[in-house]
Amino acid sequence: MNLILLFEDDFVAPARARLNDRRYRHIRAVQQPREGDTLKVGLLNGATGHARVLRVDDLCIELETCLDQPPPAALPLTLVMALPRPKMLKRTLETIAAMGVKKLCLIHSYRVDKSYWSSPLLAEDAIREHLLLGLEQAGDTLLPEVSLHKRFKPFAEDELPSIATNTRALVAHPYEAAGCPVATLEPTTLAIGPEGGFIRYEVEKLQQAGLTPIHVGSRILRVETAVPVLLARLFPPL
Amino acid sequence: MNLILLFEDDFVAPARARLNDRRYRHIRAVQQPREGDTLKVGLLNGATGHARVLRVDDLCIELETCLDQPPPAALPLTLVMALPRPKMLKRTLETIAAMGVKKLCLIHSYRVDKSYWSSPLLAEDAIREHLLLGLEQAGDTLLPEVSLHKRFKPFAEDELPSIATNTRALVAHPYEAAGCPVATLEPTTLAIGPEGGFIRYEVEKLQQAGLTPIHVGSRILRVETAVPVLLARLFPPL
Repeated sequence: MNLILLFEDDFVAPARARLNDRRYRHIRAVQQPREGDTLKVGLLNGATGHARVLRVDDLCIELETCLDQPPPAALPLTLVMALPRPKMLKRTLETIAAMGVKKLCLIHSYRVDKSYWSSPLLAEDAIREHLLLGLEQAGDTLLPEVSLHKRFKPFAEDELPSIATNTRALVAHPYEAAGCPVATLEPTTLAIGPEGGFIRYEVEKLQQAGLTPIHVGSRILRVETAVPVLLARLFPPL
Repeated sequence: MNLILLFEDDFVAPARARLNDRRYRHIRAVQQPREGDTLKVGLLNGATGHARVLRVDDLCIELETCLDQPPPAALPLTLVMALPRPKMLKRTLETIAAMGVKKLCLIHSYRVDKSYWSSPLLAEDAIREHLLLGLEQAGDTLLPEVSLHKRFKPFAEDELPSIATNTRALVAHPYEAAGCPVATLEPTTLAIGPEGGFIRYEVEKLQQAGLTPIHVGSRILRVETAVPVLLARLFPPL
């Protein structure tokens, strides 16, 4: 936790927040602050800054906040990702939030096990929890939007074309693909397949929606490695 | 498993391998091959190629191998990494093997919990197991060399300078650092700190050994994300 994310509900008075949940326990156990110490904080979907510890006891911590900095810049990206298996989804949600992705569409694909769609991890609260962990890691405050699309074809035909319009629209696909384009900050749509990749029919549908296949080398990477590699290649450091 | 890694011991005759362990069970459960099917294989530290299934029954699978391709190119890198906590070490070993790192020095650092050095994951066999998983994922055969350095100062003073000589020698460090250099295939030494980063004394020691601090943006990433991001920024796709 490199930044303590605060919610509107935490404020007991202007610029005065009181925490008594997971964040309080983490701060107390790991950072062990004393009265007067300064901690890095941010308001969910708002500014970042610092907070002075007013009081810390066995029940809660009370902070005086000064939120005067913008959160780090976001990636101009809509990430379209075949739903990974639950364990990998968890880490991937944290990674994309940490790296500054703000729009994620989780989609079905032929090689996605249908049972993955029943995972409790897809509950709104569970998704949010892992995104918050990623934001806290990276010092960000802007919660990514995540949408679920359980049917590939309607998504690819009816929704993807308008998402992809006027963006650098790409699908990571190791076969019949061009090399990775250079890093720029232009608006981008990037689709990433499941383990085993998109099937030919799906790649054709994605191409019809305006996406161009690219690859990032001959090595086949797990989704949780492919995501940071692709984002690092497509965008300059922010 | 995108490539089945074979060992010399698997061969019961020239170009004929028999498997009855984890690999056999995985192939049978996931790939479900029949006689005559072709699988992607590689010989540990040797060539890659394909194998025809001669026989598959309840006890083993027998393959006729044709190993005629070189493994994918390796990164010209020595990665020096503060020992991560065990769960993260596991995944990081798999990631670095998958991405083509061939030399890894795991080192102590002030912010590395001393208990990490007692993890059973640091046994030679355990390290090897996770490296093999990474190689199988990426279709590689060349096992990375991993060395353990339980004391920071002797490593930084006596070993690192000769590792770093005549290489692009870098330490990922978010403070007082230059931006990330452009991607090239030149021989590189890269040091990555623990959660919380190297302390000032350590950064000075690494600089004395010839390493230059670089950063890859304002976001603080977990080691398992920072590694793929740094490698993707420092090297072009292979």
